[in-house]
Amino acid sequence: MKQSEDAFGRLVLDHLEHGGQVEIVERDDGFIAVSRLGPPAYFAPFRQWPRHERTAMRLARGRVLDIGCGAGRVALHLEDRGHEVVGIDVSPLAVRVARKRGARDVRVLPVTKVDRSLGRFDTFVMYGSNFGLVGGRRRAAWLLRRLGAIANDGATILAGSTNPYITDNPEHLAFHRLNRERGRMAGQLRIRIRHGAYATPWFDYLLASPEEMGELAASAGWELTRVVEHGEPFYVGVLERLV
Amino acid sequence: MKQSEDAFGRLVLDHLEHGGQVEIVERDDGFIAVSRLGPPAYFAPFRQWPRHERTAMRLARGRVLDIGCGAGRVALHLEDRGHEVVGIDVSPLAVRVARKRGARDVRVLPVTKVDRSLGRFDTFVMYGSNFGLVGGRRRAAWLLRRLGAIANDGATILAGSTNPYITDNPEHLAFHRLNRERGRMAGQLRIRIRHGAYATPWFDYLLASPEEMGELAASAGWELTRVVEHGEPFYVGVLERLV
Repeated sequence: MKQSEDAFGRLVLDHLEHGGQVEIVERDDGFIAVSRLGPPAYFAPFRQWPRHERTAMRLARGRVLDIGCGAGRVALHLEDRGHEVVGIDVSPLAVRVARKRGARDVRVLPVTKVDRSLGRFDTFVMYGSNFGLVGGRRRAAWLLRRLGAIANDGATILAGSTNPYITDNPEHLAFHRLNRERGRMAGQLRIRIRHGAYATPWFDYLLASPEEMGELAASAGWELTRVVEHGEPFYVGVLERLV
Repeated sequence: MKQSEDAFGRLVLDHLEHGGQVEIVERDDGFIAVSRLGPPAYFAPFRQWPRHERTAMRLARGRVLDIGCGAGRVALHLEDRGHEVVGIDVSPLAVRVARKRGARDVRVLPVTKVDRSLGRFDTFVMYGSNFGLVGGRRRAAWLLRRLGAIANDGATILAGSTNPYITDNPEHLAFHRLNRERGRMAGQLRIRIRHGAYATPWFDYLLASPEEMGELAASAGWELTRVVEHGEPFYVGVLERLV
């Protein structure tokens, strides 16, 4: 990653140093918005996390891989609870921030590069809707199998996502239609984060309903056994590894 | 203006209807940021205006042209004080918002199109750094003369601006250098506002120091007689028409 591409890391570093930052997300069709939660949420202590994330956190067991660890809120919380945690993030500056904040083992690594050199895990955490990093159908199957290959027996993925169908925003509904017309899943986004002179490369990000998440999981050796949600579009799908 | 170009108007309308909006400004070199003040400031009642704007408002006299009236805060305030005010803005939705909020005479009109059909004015208000609408050297001279042509004797421009030199942001300093290298004024921006699927056309916006404002004014029949500022980059330059 070139330095100018680390918009996300620069954002969290600026928020750590100066506060008051907002996250600007641009979609490849020109739609732009600021994240509803954004940087304050990336630094929030456990008691301020969204309720579905707090509830599902009870299911974390054993050795944990925190996928897209950002500023380290999940890693820090689970380390406090005595877990061994490896945090990975594609952003060098975010990893630096997580390390500064005390996370013990955080590494610059895209989720697509995880392999057995990391060891095996009992729990995979994809919070802040980071199940989205599976991108789309094809990569989801490939990536979930890859996680399966470094999973211990009985492993679990705590897969945070946003259900794209819980909206009445006509712009979003039109976007879903357009996606389906071109053979994509309705909530399949191509986005980038921008911050000052920084812009990440465009990347795929999937907003999936629980039904869609269940299908993607089933195609790759995992089973959606529980959905933790509290009447919001945000939820955590609990995926268990099929034996 | 095509509907999809009225990003500013959509922003203020969304803020009126739902609150919580932020303004995203993109510069033509790819720099992007949210406005420091933004929509809440566009709706602020007089007592919440920045101090330099409140101070300089005492100098408003007679019939007023509110240039870039936006959601109408200046027009509404001066009408309350008994002035006859014409507000103009290039944004149809912003004008609709200002009208909804009670502004009596607001019109969709770019400042470059003002002429005698509007009548003559004693005071021109360019608040919220709207002196920036003069764009650059050449247009500033042309536009200030045009205002002079519809000015009564003794007329005043209350020219809000932001002094670009009061910064230690290295990205902004590098941008100043680049501008000077290509023969532009250091604070000459080419920007657009983006909001959801909406994007304004690119437009020129000038951040000028008091010295620069004084020179531009002098070249076009106006004199900078006073600078109202309170230790911030923001200030109001008081321009009086030379007879």
